[in-house]
Amino acid sequence: MLFFLLTRQIMAISTKPASGTRDFLAEQVLARETVIQEIRQAYELHGFVPLQTPAFERLSILLNKYGEDGDPLVFKLLRRGELPANAAENPESLTDLGLRYDLTVPLARVYAKHRNKLPKFYKRYQIQPVWRADRPQKGRFREFYQCDIDFIGSQHILAEFEVLSAATSALKALNFPSFTVHINDRKILTAILEHAAIKDEKSQRATLIIIDKLDKIGAEKVKKLLLNDLTEESVKIIDQLILTPSNDDTLSSLKKLEQIIGSANGAFAQLQELFSLIKTAKLHGNFRFDPSLARGLSYYTGPIFEFSSPNLNGSIGGGGRYDNLIGSFSSQPVPSVGFSLGLERILVILEQIDQLAAINIAPDLIVTHLDPNFTNTIVSFANQARQAGLKTEIYPETSKLKKQLKYCAAQKTRFVAIIGSREIENGVITIKDLTQRAQHSFSAEEAIIWMQEHKLSS
Amino acid sequence: MLFFLLTRQIMAISTKPASGTRDFLAEQVLARETVIQEIRQAYELHGFVPLQTPAFERLSILLNKYGEDGDPLVFKLLRRGELPANAAENPESLTDLGLRYDLTVPLARVYAKHRNKLPKFYKRYQIQPVWRADRPQKGRFREFYQCDIDFIGSQHILAEFEVLSAATSALKALNFPSFTVHINDRKILTAILEHAAIKDEKSQRATLIIIDKLDKIGAEKVKKLLLNDLTEESVKIIDQLILTPSNDDTLSSLKKLEQIIGSANGAFAQLQELFSLIKTAKLHGNFRFDPSLARGLSYYTGPIFEFSSPNLNGSIGGGGRYDNLIGSFSSQPVPSVGFSLGLERILVILEQIDQLAAINIAPDLIVTHLDPNFTNTIVSFANQARQAGLKTEIYPETSKLKKQLKYCAAQKTRFVAIIGSREIENGVITIKDLTQRAQHSFSAEEAIIWMQEHKLSS
Repeated sequence: MLFFLLTRQIMAISTKPASGTRDFLAEQVLARETVIQEIRQAYELHGFVPLQTPAFERLSILLNKYGEDGDPLVFKLLRRGELPANAAENPESLTDLGLRYDLTVPLARVYAKHRNKLPKFYKRYQIQPVWRADRPQKGRFREFYQCDIDFIGSQHILAEFEVLSAATSALKALNFPSFTVHINDRKILTAILEHAAIKDEKSQRATLIIIDKLDKIGAEKVKKLLLNDLTEESVKIIDQLILTPSNDDTLSSLKKLEQIIGSANGAFAQLQELFSLIKTAKLHGNFRFDPSLARGLSYYTGPIFEFSSPNLNGSIGGGGRYDNLIGSFSSQPVPSVGFSLGLERILVILEQIDQLAAINIAPDLIVTHLDPNFTNTIVSFANQARQAGLKTEIYPETSKLKKQLKYCAAQKTRFVAIIGSREIENGVITIKDLTQRAQHSFSAEEAIIWMQEHKLSS
Repeated sequence: MLFFLLTRQIMAISTKPASGTRDFLAEQVLARETVIQEIRQAYELHGFVPLQTPAFERLSILLNKYGEDGDPLVFKLLRRGELPANAAENPESLTDLGLRYDLTVPLARVYAKHRNKLPKFYKRYQIQPVWRADRPQKGRFREFYQCDIDFIGSQHILAEFEVLSAATSALKALNFPSFTVHINDRKILTAILEHAAIKDEKSQRATLIIIDKLDKIGAEKVKKLLLNDLTEESVKIIDQLILTPSNDDTLSSLKKLEQIIGSANGAFAQLQELFSLIKTAKLHGNFRFDPSLARGLSYYTGPIFEFSSPNLNGSIGGGGRYDNLIGSFSSQPVPSVGFSLGLERILVILEQIDQLAAINIAPDLIVTHLDPNFTNTIVSFANQARQAGLKTEIYPETSKLKKQLKYCAAQKTRFVAIIGSREIENGVITIKDLTQRAQHSFSAEEAIIWMQEHKLSS
């Protein structure tokens, strides 16, 4: 009774998932998991090991990490129990936990906590959802997966190489179409800005934020914005060295720029070595030095990378060296290189180009159910089929064969087992192969062997 | 600079995960995923297909579903943006979303939304974390995984059988030790209570809640509690028919009870058929009719089940038929049978008895790095090894071989590749097999074939 009242009362409730989130039905779950599996395998082949962290963290861990734009997007959990009386004046008292916003801050916490039992070089991957209270729009969700790798503990450029090798191998394994890997170094950007007489950190930061918009608004508008705060001479240098694309090959453009602005604290030598290793290993992807790449997050300290695809605006992944964040919960800086592949964007592109492996959620076999007296026989047969590794459904109700066959066709099963009076009398089972429009009668054992063979050979 | 200031400031922050949640390092992630994989496979062999739903739902979906004890345990999300001015007086205005509390209510929502494209019999599995703001204690977490299967759309007892077959097959595949499957039917409980002259729904419910404590407090205390509200005669009947364990076999005890209380709306006939099918299919587990099984959640309408293990107090899984909940977001009741395996408890028991497969997170190969001039050679070799499917790490920094070998031993790698001046001169690579304390020099191609063969043969 309770439920019927309830039913009427809540019929008006929306059954959509919450704004910015999605339900994944069977085909979608399997498509996502297939892609995740390829990414994991590529990461593991490179010696990265998995980590999982909780969906929520204390706000003391999460806040003041994501900048003015990011912090307000952290989903916060209401405190349990009685709320404090002064809640209205003091909204911070309402909440103490927040949902995972990225996979890097939890990594920094875990690293600080478990450092003693982690290897000297801690190479971890983490593939989990994150949540951001962003305005939902096409392709932007409030719940989405990130696929992160981080190489913690080495200053050597091999750390950058390993991360790029793992990420590009994942895309190769996915048969991901042509993509470009943009590479730059924060130290080179700083050296260019200093060369352009932009010396203080605040102006440098403001300038980088504007340069970062190049992709979206184009060079002319970037220059206009820069002229608000900088001299013409400064903007001219930025234009020449950053905004105007060069036709030179990577090594020449690195060398030319180095001649103008100096060694940038060794950044040029490092990038040259990185490009040389990439060439040696024939990494998948079009790699290029891109002095306009800035990467929004201010925590990068060295080389930075971004993957772009002609099939989609915005990046499909990005990362770089950040030598200070991982140590921020412990007593000293820890050199680290990280990279994050955006699962949702990769899926969008693979879908567009029809590159997702055909997902088959159909059972191999449906056992029909024609007479209540035969239920034990069909259960016994279904059981044998399952033990032989065939995905098997039992039609639960007794009804006309025609109706059951209609269900079998809708379920796209390969085989249908028919156990009627004739079959029971003769001790056989009739198997229809729906792809062949053929049927045969066998003993149960023969039927299973026959289905196994025909399933494999198709 | 920013980060060094930050570093000092936040050194006092706890790096523990939030109360009631856990970090899973590599071995733990892999152990959990191995178990999940076995459960998935068993579910899929039975024709169940996956579903994933978002971590949070509108509160209009979640609330008033879990009863007086459950509803307050739903984690609620603070609204984004400006909070309403009257928040203190009206705490509901603070929040509009809540974290997934179980996998059944989201299923009901998804079923209502997608009904038209789902099959007539929708058999879905869902393995995702849920969150409950329970008081954390040993073995009870605020974030934990459930592994649910639900068979939607049939009134036939085969739906119960299929769910039990899938769940017990999963435990069998895990080599889970001896466990008991307690089976009862809500209709039998109701018939017994009516036989004991407890007629109105409210008293029946109150009585069931007390009977449900039998496991924890024992029969004597249950009787004492029952005597507060019921006549001595009623309690005597309950004692005889429910609280006192019978020594009869399942079929005899079903028959005896039916003779006393009548058909219970066909429940006895159904359970007899269920036990017969279980016997035919030789399902794994000790199955027994348990008239004291009540299952707390009031939404069950027919057969109910609970799995118990001698290795742990409380159940490792439970479920039953609930013909009203799935339809509660749409216009009519939908017959359903559900079952939930508790991943965390299963893991605890498998760990206790050392039944978890040995988890190996070690790389197959570490390539040492002895000279900056050899970096291209080692990258090239590591690349070949990865393409051959060997999990390969590169020691990123150049340092003394002894130090690198120490790292290799700590990482428990099987093979170490040494590429020093001698190797470079002779165009070979030396491979140490750490399990054999042997080493050989080969060409790169031979080395990889040799490692593949030795890895497989060990």
